[in-house]
Amino acid sequence: MAKIAVLGTGMVGQTIGSKLVALGHEVKMGSRDAKNEKAASWAKKEGAKASHGTFADAAAFGELVFNCTSGHGALEALRAAGAANLDGKLVVDISNPLDFSKGMPPSLFAGNTDSLAERIQKEFPKAHVVKTLNTINCEIMVDPGKVAGGDHTVFMSGNDPGAKGRVAEILKGWFGWKNVLDLGDITTARGTESYMPLWLRLWGALGTADFNIKIVK
Amino acid sequence: MAKIAVLGTGMVGQTIGSKLVALGHEVKMGSRDAKNEKAASWAKKEGAKASHGTFADAAAFGELVFNCTSGHGALEALRAAGAANLDGKLVVDISNPLDFSKGMPPSLFAGNTDSLAERIQKEFPKAHVVKTLNTINCEIMVDPGKVAGGDHTVFMSGNDPGAKGRVAEILKGWFGWKNVLDLGDITTARGTESYMPLWLRLWGALGTADFNIKIVK
Repeated sequence: MAKIAVLGTGMVGQTIGSKLVALGHEVKMGSRDAKNEKAASWAKKEGAKASHGTFADAAAFGELVFNCTSGHGALEALRAAGAANLDGKLVVDISNPLDFSKGMPPSLFAGNTDSLAERIQKEFPKAHVVKTLNTINCEIMVDPGKVAGGDHTVFMSGNDPGAKGRVAEILKGWFGWKNVLDLGDITTARGTESYMPLWLRLWGALGTADFNIKIVK
Repeated sequence: MAKIAVLGTGMVGQTIGSKLVALGHEVKMGSRDAKNEKAASWAKKEGAKASHGTFADAAAFGELVFNCTSGHGALEALRAAGAANLDGKLVVDISNPLDFSKGMPPSLFAGNTDSLAERIQKEFPKAHVVKTLNTINCEIMVDPGKVAGGDHTVFMSGNDPGAKGRVAEILKGWFGWKNVLDLGDITTARGTESYMPLWLRLWGALGTADFNIKIVK
């Protein structure tokens, strides 16, 4: 069993955090404010293995870190977590660079020749950043069997083979993913982050967030 | 049998053009220069139902128009074709806004809060622009069964329901697609054009262009 930091108190953080607790891990949810009500309420609901604190508290606690913040707040949250609490650790980056300031559907504030994952890796060069799970709705992240019996694809991007190996184990062993596709180094996160505009249009056309893509060849 | 314009002499134009000729249609391939050698060679190879000319010659000839130009040259080609030759017609837009000037892999010169399809529709408001087929390699466009027995998805985006109905008939009846997903109006082309960076990374990771995505829910 591992000690895990979950940064972010939104739907993604709560869903990932609850799944990790259900698997028997100890999870500390981090947020800007140590007294964040959503984090406190989540920890109370999840019981003894769940706790909460600042971003720094959580990152110091975790052997590995899930970044479940909104894309807009991701770098700020990781700065608050502190490089010393991230160095040498696996940072699973689930955030998407969504910009809601220009109306709906949201656009991207990073992309094309850049990505949020690359910005994170650049600012924290000693952390092992792996981008994954950002292409699906949070309920499916931890329960891929909810869609088509789990016969669909999740991607990962990162510079460190060992970190990606660990992520593949987590995705398969903990969350139940069957098809994990390694796209390559962290720059390949441009691909999955740029998929968001299609995801948003698919959401609209299908009328549900319970879908994913399967790579077929 | 229809009279069809194919704008563009590259792999996409040649593949689409040859498929349409094989189906029994009359196809005129258009390019900047009426004496374009690739177009002349293609027309000679394809026989009596194939011809070539300028963009304007082709667009005047076609009851419907396939835009198979490189994304960079798309608007220029359609301007050369002339609004009078496009007004009221179905324009099937297959182009992607790829920018090779910043190195490989290419980035996008339109996207996020805009798309090439929208620029085309805006400049030719009386044409019925439908974006489709831009998310797969050209061989699969006209032979979806080449991948996974055809069990995968092609998208379309456009403002005119009648034009999209015609495109669905073409995709299914002529090219053999089983799953055609209408994403909505022309702005939804932002989704499929923004998918290109992921397509390019998948191409790299899979080591083949013979793949596609299947939407599962």
